[in-house]
Amino acid sequence: MSPVFSVRLHELQAALGGDLVSNDGADALGERLIRRIGPLDSADGTTISFLSNPRYRAQLQDTAAGCVIVAPAVQDGVRAGCVALVTPDPYLYFARLTQWWAARTRAVAPVGVHPSAVVAPDVVLGEGVSIGSLAVVESGAVIGHHAVVGAHAFVGAGVVIGEGSRLAPRVTLMPGTRLGARCLLHSGVVIGADGFGFAPTQGRWEKIEQLGGVQIGDDVEIGANTCIDRGALDDTVIGAGVKLDNLIQIGHNVQIGDHSAMAGCVGIAGSARIGSGCTVGGGAIVLGHLALADGVHISAASVVMRSISKPGQYSGVFPLDDNASWEKNAATLRQLHTLRDRLRALEKKMTP
Amino acid sequence: MSPVFSVRLHELQAALGGDLVSNDGADALGERLIRRIGPLDSADGTTISFLSNPRYRAQLQDTAAGCVIVAPAVQDGVRAGCVALVTPDPYLYFARLTQWWAARTRAVAPVGVHPSAVVAPDVVLGEGVSIGSLAVVESGAVIGHHAVVGAHAFVGAGVVIGEGSRLAPRVTLMPGTRLGARCLLHSGVVIGADGFGFAPTQGRWEKIEQLGGVQIGDDVEIGANTCIDRGALDDTVIGAGVKLDNLIQIGHNVQIGDHSAMAGCVGIAGSARIGSGCTVGGGAIVLGHLALADGVHISAASVVMRSISKPGQYSGVFPLDDNASWEKNAATLRQLHTLRDRLRALEKKMTP
Amino acid sequence: MSPVFSVRLHELQAALGGDLVSNDGADALGERLIRRIGPLDSADGTTISFLSNPRYRAQLQDTAAGCVIVAPAVQDGVRAGCVALVTPDPYLYFARLTQWWAARTRAVAPVGVHPSAVVAPDVVLGEGVSIGSLAVVESGAVIGHHAVVGAHAFVGAGVVIGEGSRLAPRVTLMPGTRLGARCLLHSGVVIGADGFGFAPTQGRWEKIEQLGGVQIGDDVEIGANTCIDRGALDDTVIGAGVKLDNLIQIGHNVQIGDHSAMAGCVGIAGSARIGSGCTVGGGAIVLGHLALADGVHISAASVVMRSISKPGQYSGVFPLDDNASWEKNAATLRQLHTLRDRLRALEKKMTP
Repeated sequence: MSPVFSVRLHELQAALGGDLVSNDGADALGERLIRRIGPLDSADGTTISFLSNPRYRAQLQDTAAGCVIVAPAVQDGVRAGCVALVTPDPYLYFARLTQWWAARTRAVAPVGVHPSAVVAPDVVLGEGVSIGSLAVVESGAVIGHHAVVGAHAFVGAGVVIGEGSRLAPRVTLMPGTRLGARCLLHSGVVIGADGFGFAPTQGRWEKIEQLGGVQIGDDVEIGANTCIDRGALDDTVIGAGVKLDNLIQIGHNVQIGDHSAMAGCVGIAGSARIGSGCTVGGGAIVLGHLALADGVHISAASVVMRSISKPGQYSGVFPLDDNASWEKNAATLRQLHTLRDRLRALEKKMTP
Repeated sequence: MSPVFSVRLHELQAALGGDLVSNDGADALGERLIRRIGPLDSADGTTISFLSNPRYRAQLQDTAAGCVIVAPAVQDGVRAGCVALVTPDPYLYFARLTQWWAARTRAVAPVGVHPSAVVAPDVVLGEGVSIGSLAVVESGAVIGHHAVVGAHAFVGAGVVIGEGSRLAPRVTLMPGTRLGARCLLHSGVVIGADGFGFAPTQGRWEKIEQLGGVQIGDDVEIGANTCIDRGALDDTVIGAGVKLDNLIQIGHNVQIGDHSAMAGCVGIAGSARIGSGCTVGGGAIVLGHLALADGVHISAASVVMRSISKPGQYSGVFPLDDNASWEKNAATLRQLHTLRDRLRALEKKMTP
Repeated sequence: MSPVFSVRLHELQAALGGDLVSNDGADALGERLIRRIGPLDSADGTTISFLSNPRYRAQLQDTAAGCVIVAPAVQDGVRAGCVALVTPDPYLYFARLTQWWAARTRAVAPVGVHPSAVVAPDVVLGEGVSIGSLAVVESGAVIGHHAVVGAHAFVGAGVVIGEGSRLAPRVTLMPGTRLGARCLLHSGVVIGADGFGFAPTQGRWEKIEQLGGVQIGDDVEIGANTCIDRGALDDTVIGAGVKLDNLIQIGHNVQIGDHSAMAGCVGIAGSARIGSGCTVGGGAIVLGHLALADGVHISAASVVMRSISKPGQYSGVFPLDDNASWEKNAATLRQLHTLRDRLRALEKKMTP
């Protein structure tokens, strides 16, 4: 993305900390030139890489990387000729390095309103705001300082966007949405569409108008094409620091506690309450009106059908098998209850 | 959303019916001022609330609501000082109340074509139509009276939109789509993208052009980012009154009977035929070419692998458990067929 | 879609091959007029239909089709009065016929840049390119000859689109995307949103900026609202001829081999490597960092939790049952491990 950017190790160290160490007595380590952040196995002499899992320490001998971020416990394993950048939490250091790098190499959204955007005259624009090409911002919206509204984004009437938040191209915020500071919403996100609420009557469905809104905390990231419905009466509430991957469905009046994270394709049905610090694996489903305690971790593709009051890891997935074996086991599974009864009968017979 | 709107109970009663009853002999019940519809537990004296499930009747004593919609059977349980609005079906009354409320508090889409919209000269626009900012309406499209085409919506060539139907911002209707009256399509909906059809040939896939269209009946609601593919040869057909939640995939040539409803993240594979009055829970999958009878109800996250000819509730989900227990049971499940054989062998041995 | 188009059989034969045969000695078979491609059961005398599965050969007697594409083995079964168009692979012939038909009946995107589009001055446009209404093409993008950028599409800075590729309305290609030739991307597709990468630190998530891009091979088709994330450091890579259905999530750094195909609602987690010639059924989930060999086929709604090194069909789905039976079996399943132990104990007792 930025083939011409380069940096010397002492600059990284000055910005992000860490110790520069060599296992071969080389000096002037800080002078080494870095042009790329890359994985150990595709690195070259101008690449900075990292090792976070000590189990893979053998790779420290094989990599061609010019520098590798490591924990003190494995720094001795770094190959001669490769600089070790030693820090207590290499993965966290790596994360901050990517941020430092992106801030220096990514195009910055131009400040101002693109002439093709359609912005209502009473919209409140903070300082340094960027409104992209063909964006629509409707009456009464309030856009915080340094916020970015991408191309083709739609910001409905009265929507509030916090300071420094960014909407990628083609994000939709319906009226009634309040977005915190420093959020990042990816393309195709829809916040505040109607929740799914109908009263059954004589074989038909009578619509329950969704009169609530959506509140999203600070530092929330929401992946591409993810949807968060508006509440029926009260608001749907997403806590601070929540991270949602792509193609997730969050039903009306769901509450998600701070710093919970969910992988792609998850579905959270209406009025579910997810605690803080939870994780939900990809493709998992949480049924409506359930409550998950803080610190609950749901494995990918599992289905949560009851509330969970104790933290821990929970799973429920049919194990994959070759098709023939699966067919036999699946067929037997449909008689499992009978098998149990037969087993019980045998046990009874055997007991004198 | 509308903090300044207020209404007296006699106005609601005049519009929607019901009896106003007090358990403390108070009079002038109809004069009570209502400013909000809200749940029982967060209500205050200007809130109108409702109780639909008699199991929770105890809440009628605790709520601070100024008025609560209840069935005759529980009206005696309403706290003194709270007005009971008595009606045979409180949930239905509540639904209609939300509609009445929304009609009085929501912004109405402005009639006319926004100057930034790109509308082909031969498009037929009914009376009172609203075309939003930066919408695109292509040649030959027909937009029924009082229909609303939201900002950034795309209406392809020749598309027909029935009277009073509404497209939220950023809905896509590809050519070949016919939409009935009074439909509501939420942001990100894609109707009429190509179905997934390929002929395998020598390790490659040869595209089958999708020549059919999509027919959608009256009073259909379609959730955010839901997709309905065009038919391969004939049309994909969605019956009247069907309600689809967000992020649902409807394959080519699927037929869905009238008044069926599906929750979020459902996938219906190509050429499946779903009856009338069916419900499909969130995350469920129905395989291709299957037929589901009228009145079939599929539990959330279940997978339908065979046609179903009898109405009823069907389920198939691996029960969630703590991870350690799940691992043990899942491992055993892979030997289930063997267990059955061993059980059978034991039974044989025991039978003289 | 094209009620006035018609063609004589000899024209089809000249374009696509095959033998025209009649079982009743009729001549001038090539003169027969065809107005529609349709299924056998809804065909009339001006319809051309096809039979690919010999199991359904009885339909060849019942259809009213004017012509039916068949394999030599079943041509004798075609009803008198219906022309047999005989070819070794009728399904492939049918696919090519739909392409031939679409090329003659579909509106062609107008060459040139629509005046409402926002195209940066330094964009490189090939010959015959079409840029639709209100599309945005940012600085440095390169659009190959005869490519089509649909209405409301967003083409980020520096994106490369290969010759003849088509973006339906409202496709988003973020910076760092390279698209091959002859690709077809449907509405709502998002390529190059950030992958889901965070380092945990003190109960919070520190963002790992996603510095890689997305490479997409030639002849790839991507369904509506499908997302392919950009890589964290290296690129996400989609091989040539890959076909992805709607609402699929492809995580960062996934690699998909040539000519693999995936049905709707699939989720492939980050860094998974899918071989060539694989198929993944609708709603299936593949966990992160796994490797699937060439020729692996995953059944719909199955969850892949371990790498698969041998080609074949793999499944893992809880069998659907009426709800009462499912409840009993699911409850027993949670004790399955115990059942095994009890069975073992019985066996021990029985063995002298």
